[in-house]
Amino acid sequence: MTYCIGLYLDEGLVMLSDSRTNAGVDYVSTFRKMFVWEKPGERVIGLMASGNLSVAQGVVNLLNEGIDFSEEEPQETLMSVASMFKAAQLVGRAVRQIYESDGEAMEAQGTPFNVSIILGGQIVGRRMRLFEIYSAGNFIEASEDTPFLQIGEHKYGKPILDRAATYRTGLVDAIKLSLISMDSTIRSNISVGLPLDLLVYRKDSLVVELNRRIEADDLYFIDVAQRWSMALRKAYQALPDPPFAKRKE
Amino acid sequence: MTYCIGLYLDEGLVMLSDSRTNAGVDYVSTFRKMFVWEKPGERVIGLMASGNLSVAQGVVNLLNEGIDFSEEEPQETLMSVASMFKAAQLVGRAVRQIYESDGEAMEAQGTPFNVSIILGGQIVGRRMRLFEIYSAGNFIEASEDTPFLQIGEHKYGKPILDRAATYRTGLVDAIKLSLISMDSTIRSNISVGLPLDLLVYRKDSLVVELNRRIEADDLYFIDVAQRWSMALRKAYQALPDPPFAKRKE
Repeated sequence: MTYCIGLYLDEGLVMLSDSRTNAGVDYVSTFRKMFVWEKPGERVIGLMASGNLSVAQGVVNLLNEGIDFSEEEPQETLMSVASMFKAAQLVGRAVRQIYESDGEAMEAQGTPFNVSIILGGQIVGRRMRLFEIYSAGNFIEASEDTPFLQIGEHKYGKPILDRAATYRTGLVDAIKLSLISMDSTIRSNISVGLPLDLLVYRKDSLVVELNRRIEADDLYFIDVAQRWSMALRKAYQALPDPPFAKRKE
Repeated sequence: MTYCIGLYLDEGLVMLSDSRTNAGVDYVSTFRKMFVWEKPGERVIGLMASGNLSVAQGVVNLLNEGIDFSEEEPQETLMSVASMFKAAQLVGRAVRQIYESDGEAMEAQGTPFNVSIILGGQIVGRRMRLFEIYSAGNFIEASEDTPFLQIGEHKYGKPILDRAATYRTGLVDAIKLSLISMDSTIRSNISVGLPLDLLVYRKDSLVVELNRRIEADDLYFIDVAQRWSMALRKAYQALPDPPFAKRKE
């Protein structure tokens, strides 16, 4: 499995992905699920993929090599599209192309065609956007009301986002929130694991603010995970006792 | 959907269930998923069921009316079985009887035969036990290593249990933990909802310590949910900033 989070905020975007891939429990490996396209001053685009690894990698290859929007137009890549909406359409088109070439054969082998993609970024003169693209190539967009998107094993890490993530959350707090959400998932589900890839984009800057790999020995991540566990234990113990229950004498 | 938690502790058992049932999003209703059998001084048995409601109710009816273990033996009910192991076997047998009578017809209508049951309690002279029974009637038991069992929509509420629930957790703290775990699930998944049913059993007491319905207007539950949200927000804000990210000037 996989867990990826994208936060769409007034200050910018935070995108965080794990890197564990498994085919059964006896073939576990590390694959990058975060991809970044940048031309400073012109565009920053981040993409995270969950689902079948061959589909995800195929989509990324097509996005780099170029896809026909129509017979009249020249081929487009994520480095050439004029807007984030066009970028999301291009990703959807890439998903459909992989489905056309591989979908039937995969399903004949009992392998479901299955991919989810989070795509975020900004292109000069246009506004910053964050999308989720589905296996059918259709997509939705994050908004101020629902400022985060998740793909993969999303349930363990959702309660903290539901409670604390808003459009007004600052970038630094959002990094902390995404790391906590990821840590909750890693602890509860062995199919999600380090290293992590973290992309931070500040709105209207048109350059990558941070593109960092967080390894298993990252002292900050270890510290955050420990402090968070301790804080949770303290917080629940500090809750008042139920008036209807009594402690052992 | 459903969410039920059973905690197996040195001090006793805590069992908590929601009561929301839905067939699609336009037919949502409230059904009790917690059932208690008690003969003070002799036995306390609690059962919580998730999955198909007709199967769960059928199982409970059989457990009350009686099931043949074999042709030679008299019919058994949860009020007559001699041990918790026998009780778990009886529940498994009830599940299989419902499968035999309804399984094929349900599957012909595209309704999967699907039930999970948590069964906990103690019978005089025997030790307290907590089991999870599956759709095939087979079962597993909680132990000191893994002191909680969950059925239904279990992922949202698992991180707090993974971090804080141990066999040595006291009954009162375990009530708080189970309420927090339930609250996390209710907030993140609309198919789980109040009222809740809470059963607390103190080991070797052979009487129900607490069997309480927690309604949507329960002041303690509302207070715990609010305090917990606040505590989580404070806790993440108190984490140190990542050394690799800077705040907006």
